Amino acid sequence: MSFLTASGPSNGGRMGGMRHKHILDMASLSDADIRMILDTAVRMKEISRRPIKKVPTLRGKTVVQFFYEPSTRTKSSFDLAAKRLSADSLSFSKATSSAVKGETLLDTVQNIEAMQPDVIIIRHGSAGAPHFLAHHCEASVINAGDGMHAHPTQALLDLMTVREKMGRLRGLDLLIVGDIAHSRVARSNIVGFQKMGAHVTVCGPPTMMPIGIEQMGVKVAPSLDDAIGGADVIMMLRIQKERQAQFLMPDEREYAAVFGLNLERLQKASDDVLIMHPGPMNRGVEIAPEVADGPYAVILEQVTNGVAVRMALLYLVLGGK
Amino acid sequence: MSFLTASGPSNGGRMGGMRHKHILDMASLSDADIRMILDTAVRMKEISRRPIKKVPTLRGKTVVQFFYEPSTRTKSSFDLAAKRLSADSLSFSKATSSAVKGETLLDTVQNIEAMQPDVIIIRHGSAGAPHFLAHHCEASVINAGDGMHAHPTQALLDLMTVREKMGRLRGLDLLIVGDIAHSRVARSNIVGFQKMGAHVTVCGPPTMMPIGIEQMGVKVAPSLDDAIGGADVIMMLRIQKERQAQFLMPDEREYAAVFGLNLERLQKASDDVLIMHPGPMNRGVEIAPEVADGPYAVILEQVTNGVAVRMALLYLVLGGK
Amino acid sequence: MSFLTASGPSNGGRMGGMRHKHILDMASLSDADIRMILDTAVRMKEISRRPIKKVPTLRGKTVVQFFYEPSTRTKSSFDLAAKRLSADSLSFSKATSSAVKGETLLDTVQNIEAMQPDVIIIRHGSAGAPHFLAHHCEASVINAGDGMHAHPTQALLDLMTVREKMGRLRGLDLLIVGDIAHSRVARSNIVGFQKMGAHVTVCGPPTMMPIGIEQMGVKVAPSLDDAIGGADVIMMLRIQKERQAQFLMPDEREYAAVFGLNLERLQKASDDVLIMHPGPMNRGVEIAPEVADGPYAVILEQVTNGVAVRMALLYLVLGGK
Repeated sequence: MSFLTASGPSNGGRMGGMRHKHILDMASLSDADIRMILDTAVRMKEISRRPIKKVPTLRGKTVVQFFYEPSTRTKSSFDLAAKRLSADSLSFSKATSSAVKGETLLDTVQNIEAMQPDVIIIRHGSAGAPHFLAHHCEASVINAGDGMHAHPTQALLDLMTVREKMGRLRGLDLLIVGDIAHSRVARSNIVGFQKMGAHVTVCGPPTMMPIGIEQMGVKVAPSLDDAIGGADVIMMLRIQKERQAQFLMPDEREYAAVFGLNLERLQKASDDVLIMHPGPMNRGVEIAPEVADGPYAVILEQVTNGVAVRMALLYLVLGGK
Repeated sequence: MSFLTASGPSNGGRMGGMRHKHILDMASLSDADIRMILDTAVRMKEISRRPIKKVPTLRGKTVVQFFYEPSTRTKSSFDLAAKRLSADSLSFSKATSSAVKGETLLDTVQNIEAMQPDVIIIRHGSAGAPHFLAHHCEASVINAGDGMHAHPTQALLDLMTVREKMGRLRGLDLLIVGDIAHSRVARSNIVGFQKMGAHVTVCGPPTMMPIGIEQMGVKVAPSLDDAIGGADVIMMLRIQKERQAQFLMPDEREYAAVFGLNLERLQKASDDVLIMHPGPMNRGVEIAPEVADGPYAVILEQVTNGVAVRMALLYLVLGGK
Repeated sequence: MSFLTASGPSNGGRMGGMRHKHILDMASLSDADIRMILDTAVRMKEISRRPIKKVPTLRGKTVVQFFYEPSTRTKSSFDLAAKRLSADSLSFSKATSSAVKGETLLDTVQNIEAMQPDVIIIRHGSAGAPHFLAHHCEASVINAGDGMHAHPTQALLDLMTVREKMGRLRGLDLLIVGDIAHSRVARSNIVGFQKMGAHVTVCGPPTMMPIGIEQMGVKVAPSLDDAIGGADVIMMLRIQKERQAQFLMPDEREYAAVFGLNLERLQKASDDVLIMHPGPMNRGVEIAPEVADGPYAVILEQVTNGVAVRMALLYLVLGGK
């Protein structure tokens, strides 16, 4: 691949091509799309291991990050991805943006568009905001999380991590534990893993389980203790402490006792289980420190792969050349 | 022009040269200066349309943005302008700056200066702050808005937009509508358009009309309905909602009824009128959504030209080579 | 030195080599280390004086700034240093970081590490935080200030400034005035100047003098008036106004009368005394405006040298090649 050479811009053959100008959710990606993204990400990951971790592939491209919700890791992951491909990276946040002054979302984005960016990365509290933008933008739109709806780049980095560690996705059993109802991470991973042929089971307090979740083709486990033995991959979701005030969860201690992953519970898991967490972790609540830092956890690998997946997406939505 | 080639730094002939090291207000620019800036901006605009929208012209130059007032669009417009010319762009805001700790403006800026920037872009609540700095700085100073005094880069992008759409500036009739008294945009545009041979009329509530405004050579229209028919260009100013609390305007609904630009009122305008707004808009107050999104509006073109004008200014104040 | 050429990456001989992967405090640097850093900084300073003030030395390296305390000048100084060496520079601040959400410091930093930075620059309210990180990180760690403990890059830029102006460090008499007890600047300078053969005297209100300070090998002056005559270099510390509320200092006026450096008091100083201040200054409190702006002050030179020292450190911790 020509983009792997640091000495000049890519001028080589297309990669077969990406059908998608925008990355909005996992539902609109085919299994072939996902495979192409993961394959590209594997090669991108290699760039970040070099002494000079930068290629000129996207020189002169403008990537704008537009975050209506606070974020460190997703934003810096995209920022690094853009910089390692030599793109110019700009960032707006709600606090500094004119959005504060009462302008509509469309106005704000059209103003960004008028500055001729190539990619707009958006995180927004409302489900569907990225789709709305994609409809009105010349630039490529990448969804960095919209409300409780989707977080496709998180699902893709999770898929990459599992495929890298397990050598495959098809036939694996994924167990997602926590607040399924309010989690865009859960939603995107359910869709993504199923597309790649994995089986998904979910587990959590009844108040955090969406009604009709079985219609997504997932199994609902009666308890974590019941489900843990059959899982190849266990994905612990971050518990939002504010849910407690909404009476959706008991206190943290009780939550940890029933739905937390600790060493004792981990003994019921298979010998080569993978433990994942999208971060940031509440140590001692949904995950015990010994588990988070233990040999089965691939939590930091997820972060590393996040940069690689985002490099791949920036590269592919801009035509892969 | 050598700066139009992406392949190497400019080494070609001077552009005739810019007299000005600093861009502080429109009053200190001659009509020849303005023409040179607009001509340069036209060529800069072309760069942003290329697949690789970046030239190495200002590589190794340091551009510092120093904003005492919040801003998204002006700041990101300058940031992009700097990046597309390959300059290093740094930004301070009031919130993060030592200014908070009680240091004087001069101390803060001398500290910035000591880091050897080439250009300092400043926005400040006090009229004259950029002039004060220019007096004490080795670096070029560009005024990005000072109190109610001046906003020259906004006036230049407005001039560029009108010249581009109308083919000329001389003899045109510009109508500025809104809070003339408190608007640096109005002040800079009055000076700029008059220098280029246009006629300016202003219109707004009496409480928002500066005393003695006629001495600037502008006409004061008794009402928007009277003035609209004679205008080639209508510039709607953003209404500051806090003025209502100061009893300078009636409620928004009443303001919109008398001074808002809506479709009905637009029918009185000439067939090829241009509608401008510096943004961000209060849709439904000073401008109706149908007008903002209609065929006469060039509001997003203003944003696009803003990047081009700022590229031109960075290029010219640094010697145009 | 090959890094002085702007035309290509350094490929020349090592500089003799830096023993240290991390820069945590002055105590762990030998006098030979300090000399190497200052010598390198002198050459780096020359880069910032060029028309194109940028070299490709650290192209493709990732420098992350991780500030738990607000800062403008230190952060922008590091940012510029990174950019002038062509490194990619990323910044986290407490406000935007996940640290807010209750994640541990180690989790946050491991997440940053997982994105494969080459250098992590940290400022933290707790003494020892950078040492803790260095213990857990693959990346080089540079301490940009930890609690009341150390601020080695400030001490190095102070040493550079004095050596540059005086031609030597050995045998000089340094007088540090102010809140010695709560100052990491004082602590790092005491250690640094002593290592280089200078004598250090401290002076300040008894409430701001650490118990047992004499054990650091410094003299404690009974009053500023007594000590001023013997000093080659006078370093005024910034007084923290909040100390007044803690009854550690009288009101500002009284403080200025006894411990402030004003013109009258300066007459007792030697003819070629240097006046230093780490900034930001409280004019009229610890330093009179006429002194700050007078011929003996090298306060802005300190800022300029700050960029040079930080360029040198980034260069050296990354192997100096």
